[in-house]
Amino acid sequence: MAEITAELVNKLRQKTNAGMMDCKKALAETKGDMEAAETYLRKKGIAKAEGKADRAAKEGVIASYIHMAGRVGVLIEVNCETDFVAKNENFQGFVKDLTLHIAAANPKYLQREDVPADVVAKERDIASEQVKGKPANVIEKIVDGKMNKFFADFCLLEQPFIKDDKVVIKDFVKAKIAELGENIVVRRFTRYAVGGE
Amino acid sequence: MAEITAELVNKLRQKTNAGMMDCKKALAETKGDMEAAETYLRKKGIAKAEGKADRAAKEGVIASYIHMAGRVGVLIEVNCETDFVAKNENFQGFVKDLTLHIAAANPKYLQREDVPADVVAKERDIASEQVKGKPANVIEKIVDGKMNKFFADFCLLEQPFIKDDKVVIKDFVKAKIAELGENIVVRRFTRYAVGGE
Repeated sequence: MAEITAELVNKLRQKTNAGMMDCKKALAETKGDMEAAETYLRKKGIAKAEGKADRAAKEGVIASYIHMAGRVGVLIEVNCETDFVAKNENFQGFVKDLTLHIAAANPKYLQREDVPADVVAKERDIASEQVKGKPANVIEKIVDGKMNKFFADFCLLEQPFIKDDKVVIKDFVKAKIAELGENIVVRRFTRYAVGGE
Repeated sequence: MAEITAELVNKLRQKTNAGMMDCKKALAETKGDMEAAETYLRKKGIAKAEGKADRAAKEGVIASYIHMAGRVGVLIEVNCETDFVAKNENFQGFVKDLTLHIAAANPKYLQREDVPADVVAKERDIASEQVKGKPANVIEKIVDGKMNKFFADFCLLEQPFIKDDKVVIKDFVKAKIAELGENIVVRRFTRYAVGGE
């Protein structure tokens, strides 16, 4: 059995955002297998997150971020379950990170369900045109792939986080739900740029 | 001819937001008649403002204001003509005042033209019901009055300014146009309250 070094524990903590004792336990359970330990924690975290996702998130915070001396600005509402978490520094830092991300990555929608049907239809049409002449099932797959890329470009929850592009925002939120033990919902955001759309 | 006292000049400055020399001149021209002097200045100011209103306002600033420890937040874009004015403290203070106003007064629309036609129709309908049985021309007048009240309640540019309820926001903007000598346009705003609409 591999030794559970502090370095290994730390690495797992950074990857998963879980507590030290949880990481130690996960590595012990999985005999020091990093990937298995991550899966173990993610399962716990996600299970927790999905359990929480039904609970009402009616508290929360409105935060803003002004970038480039007033050339760009972001306003966001992020909900949680209690006033206690809403006032928590960790939660507020998380919300601040989201505003920085939105200022930089310029998402147009919160999630793919918010993209208007005519925009989706038009994108699918363009994507299909680009690959025509191939078998229908191949086209379908390529178009789906292109659409996933489109959603990842324009939907906040599917964008790779600017501070860590291996994590998409949706999973960044899930990790925070697991960490804080409350349901968290990014409810809405607005981004203005001077003279922009 | 009445003496043009410093007190008189100051009073006119406060009322009109015009410079000291302009106020002195206005009072001299109108022989110390406060009201005439104000009209004299407003004519100058408004003439200037309306002249400027055609010029493109493509510079500007995005500003935000977070109220009640994150329970309410406002994001605004205000345009002007030059980067010079956009960076001017006076202009930025003016924009900050607008965000404070929006946080407190909670406007739903920028101007009456932005109120959806069905909302206007419904309001007119309710107002008409309230006064039915009167002659048509009387009803028309009363309904118009009620609609003006509705627009003053919900449209930012028609709301009385929270810091000085004798001035509506539209005129607060006009005074700033005259003062800074550039066209200024409140382009858009967003106001979020936690759990609100």
